[in-house]
Amino acid sequence: MSGNTFGKSFTVTTFGESHGLALGCIIDGCPPGLPLTEEDIQVDLDRRKPGQSRFTTQRREDDVVKILSGVFEGKTTGTPIGLLIENTDQRSKDYSNIKDQFRPAHADYTYMHKYGVRDYRGGGRSSARETAMRVAAGAVAKKYLKAVAGIEIRGYLSQLGPIKIESVDWEEVGRNPFFCPDASKVPAMEEFMKALNKEGDSIGAKITVVATGVKPGLGEPIFDRLDAEIAHALMSINAVKGVEIGDGFDVVNQRGTQHRDEITPEGFLSNHAGGILGGISSGQDIVAHIALKPTSSLHIPGRSVDVQGNPVEVITKGRHDPCVGIRATPIAEAMLAMVLIDHLLRNRGQNADVHAGVPVIPSQA
Amino acid sequence: MSGNTFGKSFTVTTFGESHGLALGCIIDGCPPGLPLTEEDIQVDLDRRKPGQSRFTTQRREDDVVKILSGVFEGKTTGTPIGLLIENTDQRSKDYSNIKDQFRPAHADYTYMHKYGVRDYRGGGRSSARETAMRVAAGAVAKKYLKAVAGIEIRGYLSQLGPIKIESVDWEEVGRNPFFCPDASKVPAMEEFMKALNKEGDSIGAKITVVATGVKPGLGEPIFDRLDAEIAHALMSINAVKGVEIGDGFDVVNQRGTQHRDEITPEGFLSNHAGGILGGISSGQDIVAHIALKPTSSLHIPGRSVDVQGNPVEVITKGRHDPCVGIRATPIAEAMLAMVLIDHLLRNRGQNADVHAGVPVIPSQA
Amino acid sequence: MSGNTFGKSFTVTTFGESHGLALGCIIDGCPPGLPLTEEDIQVDLDRRKPGQSRFTTQRREDDVVKILSGVFEGKTTGTPIGLLIENTDQRSKDYSNIKDQFRPAHADYTYMHKYGVRDYRGGGRSSARETAMRVAAGAVAKKYLKAVAGIEIRGYLSQLGPIKIESVDWEEVGRNPFFCPDASKVPAMEEFMKALNKEGDSIGAKITVVATGVKPGLGEPIFDRLDAEIAHALMSINAVKGVEIGDGFDVVNQRGTQHRDEITPEGFLSNHAGGILGGISSGQDIVAHIALKPTSSLHIPGRSVDVQGNPVEVITKGRHDPCVGIRATPIAEAMLAMVLIDHLLRNRGQNADVHAGVPVIPSQA
Amino acid sequence: MSGNTFGKSFTVTTFGESHGLALGCIIDGCPPGLPLTEEDIQVDLDRRKPGQSRFTTQRREDDVVKILSGVFEGKTTGTPIGLLIENTDQRSKDYSNIKDQFRPAHADYTYMHKYGVRDYRGGGRSSARETAMRVAAGAVAKKYLKAVAGIEIRGYLSQLGPIKIESVDWEEVGRNPFFCPDASKVPAMEEFMKALNKEGDSIGAKITVVATGVKPGLGEPIFDRLDAEIAHALMSINAVKGVEIGDGFDVVNQRGTQHRDEITPEGFLSNHAGGILGGISSGQDIVAHIALKPTSSLHIPGRSVDVQGNPVEVITKGRHDPCVGIRATPIAEAMLAMVLIDHLLRNRGQNADVHAGVPVIPSQA
Repeated sequence: MSGNTFGKSFTVTTFGESHGLALGCIIDGCPPGLPLTEEDIQVDLDRRKPGQSRFTTQRREDDVVKILSGVFEGKTTGTPIGLLIENTDQRSKDYSNIKDQFRPAHADYTYMHKYGVRDYRGGGRSSARETAMRVAAGAVAKKYLKAVAGIEIRGYLSQLGPIKIESVDWEEVGRNPFFCPDASKVPAMEEFMKALNKEGDSIGAKITVVATGVKPGLGEPIFDRLDAEIAHALMSINAVKGVEIGDGFDVVNQRGTQHRDEITPEGFLSNHAGGILGGISSGQDIVAHIALKPTSSLHIPGRSVDVQGNPVEVITKGRHDPCVGIRATPIAEAMLAMVLIDHLLRNRGQNADVHAGVPVIPSQA
Repeated sequence: MSGNTFGKSFTVTTFGESHGLALGCIIDGCPPGLPLTEEDIQVDLDRRKPGQSRFTTQRREDDVVKILSGVFEGKTTGTPIGLLIENTDQRSKDYSNIKDQFRPAHADYTYMHKYGVRDYRGGGRSSARETAMRVAAGAVAKKYLKAVAGIEIRGYLSQLGPIKIESVDWEEVGRNPFFCPDASKVPAMEEFMKALNKEGDSIGAKITVVATGVKPGLGEPIFDRLDAEIAHALMSINAVKGVEIGDGFDVVNQRGTQHRDEITPEGFLSNHAGGILGGISSGQDIVAHIALKPTSSLHIPGRSVDVQGNPVEVITKGRHDPCVGIRATPIAEAMLAMVLIDHLLRNRGQNADVHAGVPVIPSQA
Repeated sequence: MSGNTFGKSFTVTTFGESHGLALGCIIDGCPPGLPLTEEDIQVDLDRRKPGQSRFTTQRREDDVVKILSGVFEGKTTGTPIGLLIENTDQRSKDYSNIKDQFRPAHADYTYMHKYGVRDYRGGGRSSARETAMRVAAGAVAKKYLKAVAGIEIRGYLSQLGPIKIESVDWEEVGRNPFFCPDASKVPAMEEFMKALNKEGDSIGAKITVVATGVKPGLGEPIFDRLDAEIAHALMSINAVKGVEIGDGFDVVNQRGTQHRDEITPEGFLSNHAGGILGGISSGQDIVAHIALKPTSSLHIPGRSVDVQGNPVEVITKGRHDPCVGIRATPIAEAMLAMVLIDHLLRNRGQNADVHAGVPVIPSQA
Repeated sequence: MSGNTFGKSFTVTTFGESHGLALGCIIDGCPPGLPLTEEDIQVDLDRRKPGQSRFTTQRREDDVVKILSGVFEGKTTGTPIGLLIENTDQRSKDYSNIKDQFRPAHADYTYMHKYGVRDYRGGGRSSARETAMRVAAGAVAKKYLKAVAGIEIRGYLSQLGPIKIESVDWEEVGRNPFFCPDASKVPAMEEFMKALNKEGDSIGAKITVVATGVKPGLGEPIFDRLDAEIAHALMSINAVKGVEIGDGFDVVNQRGTQHRDEITPEGFLSNHAGGILGGISSGQDIVAHIALKPTSSLHIPGRSVDVQGNPVEVITKGRHDPCVGIRATPIAEAMLAMVLIDHLLRNRGQNADVHAGVPVIPSQA
């Protein structure tokens, strides 16, 4: 009810503030028998880690994760998995300048109205640092999905400000700091970010995530559709303002004859639907896109008010991402993984018999 | 867990198939003391009702709602409200042609994989007819929001295929069958739909919904953000493929200086955020947009397979909406209302004291 | 959150007041493919039906149930099952005498404090009439448990006031109006009830419910233990004041050597635990007992206050059960069935592999 | 869904095994502004701590709790509170003797059937050590209830094997290692336990918990009654086999005239109901009793089987409580506190207006 838990069958509950002692989470519902080490989780944390290029915040956190429970002799036991990351770089800087200000486009003002109090150090709970635990929990989900269900979750940056990718080479994604799958666009992105840094401004981005290997029949109809829960999960990431499944907003000007993915015994002829029909997976790739807003922690002054309602000029000093989208790919992957494992476990054992006799159409002809 | 319930504090659980005996729902959590009549609900049902113009399905349902419980002497009692709509136009037509086919872009194939069985009469549970109960429950939510919290929910069609509105006149919305707020676009929409009907094709649409009067401080951070739950609610509507909050996908190419809504004591200077910051309401209008795909029930044949996996050619006969977006405005309003009342009741009594002393910035300068 | 839904995987949501238009419920999560008719449900409703002997209320309700959805061609489809019972004997009697009184030991006073309003006709929502829908939903659960999982749920009256049963003959339970499994006690019960009726007083009772055929491994540890959820379910029945699993309160004065159910390859040597260890089923019979208080609707006057706080003398006229325990056996069975099917579906597919290799100890040596 | 979370508005999720690295929990939903220190929690942990007398296990754990998040400048912020207790006395003893045995009346056999694997070191997750986090979370709940709502939760041992208390002196409870409120019974309890220790056997116990200061109107009707959720909470404690509200099983042989708590303007004349009517608080003391079974870790051999199904003789060596009831009072208090704060927060702001005009009857005349 207070919003710090995600999922029903694979539930992830997180805690921790940007400048508190630690971040942590409890994963409840991970099936027993999954081989799991801290290294499995660390790999994804390192992908999200700040300070890896000059285009992300210079905060230096090692983000070393510890597994406190739920794993015995190298395998999960079915009991809750407690994960912990201690905060090591809680720079005890002076917050007096922003303590009493509502930074524009931040959660300062809304948190004050909700709670009457806020931990102003580094944004407290509203900091993007919270997403570290999403990535940690998502790594467990991804491992299970791949090992047990043959489902793979991957993502990439599909647009950085005005620069759109034109091709997808999965190998390329890990080779540049942008998670960009189109090598030809990387130099332009570097130029763009350098200029932006000089100006002290920030920029938005678009991320695409894809799940391959999802069998048909996963999801629930009506309110808890797979696409609805994916939208929920992705929109819950800091800075996300839009979610699309498949063709997304392009459908507004599509015709039915164009949009409907025709079926042949050899496979679907297209995937405008993004792998979901009636809220349930069709067996095609599940494809989703998100829009991330430009961060509002800028070196360029902006107008706002203080906690007494007086006008102030706000400047954000210190370490910040000029494009939060750059590090968002692993977070989006994590959220998609959480939705899929959650539905997979909810539906566990459900389709065993009914599948018998229903033809399986290949994902793509 | 099976997806037919929405909400946590104001929960709506629905049942009913397109061609079953009845549709119904239970609203649990509506506070006591709200004056409520069947007429209050009927008004919104009539807005969604099919057969009102030649551009929607010609199925004729009176959709007369009955309140079976939870109201005593004209007011809600706090106990569950049971609502019922009997199906009267269950035309006993011959379904033998589609009984064994998977219509492309429909839920036929995915339902078969999930359940191993499906009620093929009119799409069964996956029919858009299911949304009638959303509208009924939403009408109760809207009444409470307006009467008790001063919140008003309204919506309109913002794009029909290639035709985008250019201005919003709320008075105009109710005057045409498209829920179009721009009178100058109505003739073009009529022409477009006539041509489309002739071709037997269908088209997508975009709907905008707006909530005014929401106080700052509503929502939960992290996973159950107000925007995340709005995305969930709107994406759960049949045919929706995209959801945007505020500027939505436009933020991808916005700069921070452009996007951040600056604040003055006289009010916010813009509303790019769509009224939500950090998952919590800012007091500005909450604005969301959705993309609806073109319906797949077409008079133009398409390729598919039957339940044995053999190739077939599918033609949909009978009564269907060539643009499901046209009747979707009341449904989108209903879902937004359900999210807001749910958060309002979850947060009830929560902010009473903390608000004291926190300045309230006007919605718009 | 408002308490009218039970279960997580097999959820039952009910509505309806004693003297409203109808009672109803929605069952969400019943797996597809279960043959289900109205007659299946009616059988259990008839067991609970009032007016069957002079020892229960003389209200006459046929309690005819209608299935409104979720069943197609005689089988469940996996979509929500809507059930409806119209109230036919809403005797429009004069309630002016109790309208403004708080009857002692009733929910009148507490409902007024919670809701500020109450439907005083026949107790409104707090009437035992509400349990009809529990029995209806429980009948569906029982049918599934028996047909699919080989689990049988049965119950009996184990004590009526001072009269305790001394033997259990399952055949006898259906032969007398008390659900008493010990034929030798029936005449004494009849005498006791006749005398009680003459006095205008009421009496408590104890009910026992048993589930046979539950495999080992069902349940969740920690907070959602099988026994904890059974306690929840049974304590939620009107008038219940105590719940025991297995030996219940007798364990207070037992020694460990006496209580521990020793195990041999031939089977468990005793069942003090009532079939549950560490919150998880052991494969032995699950046994629970409940204590039901004497009804407070008496013909003997009692002291109370009215809605203004003035002292009044309360006499309940009209049709009431002198022992609510007499009709409670089907209700207790229904609640136990709901817990078991709920856990069965939550655990569905979970133990498939892990069972392999773990020895199964027979329920009883 | 996997059972490691309690509550809806004040949710407590726990992790940790008896011999793992740490125990922990996340409290989500604690309102902001509550002064909270580690010492507040430590006080209750120390009451439950093992090794305090020769009648409890000799395991020595300091059980030092750390607050990792959710508290800023000495007060709660409304964000999740992370609590951690490191295990320090994980004696690396040899478990080879019980590793392959199913100890009778333990969860060994049922966990194996559920998970196919178990952490056999000290019982793993099924160890009573898990209750430490319940006590920690309960301490936060108790602090809020007392500070904000004026509700006090207290408990005592009401029976130890055959020895029943005959009077309640709240001052006495803290003066003896049994939580016994009747000083005259303490010597007999000491004698009894000494003799029991010599024999190597164990004994059951009965605990009573009481909440004073609960206003009328708290709770939900039907399935989530206050008494049903109390039953759930208390039955979820290790070793509990029975729960009673108010007079509990004594009601079986009570008459209505005897049981109904009559009301006068000066107050209720009795409290047979235990403070709850129709699932909602009446304003009287809430009273509940629980029965705890004798622990099954005995020095006296018992028959069982091993993981291959072969007969074995089981002897438990090492440190164990001969009466788990002795340390259970703080645990029962914690669970009652969790239920009450959860309902209090769910109902927050709900009754504000409706209370106006409804008379409040004093708890006791």
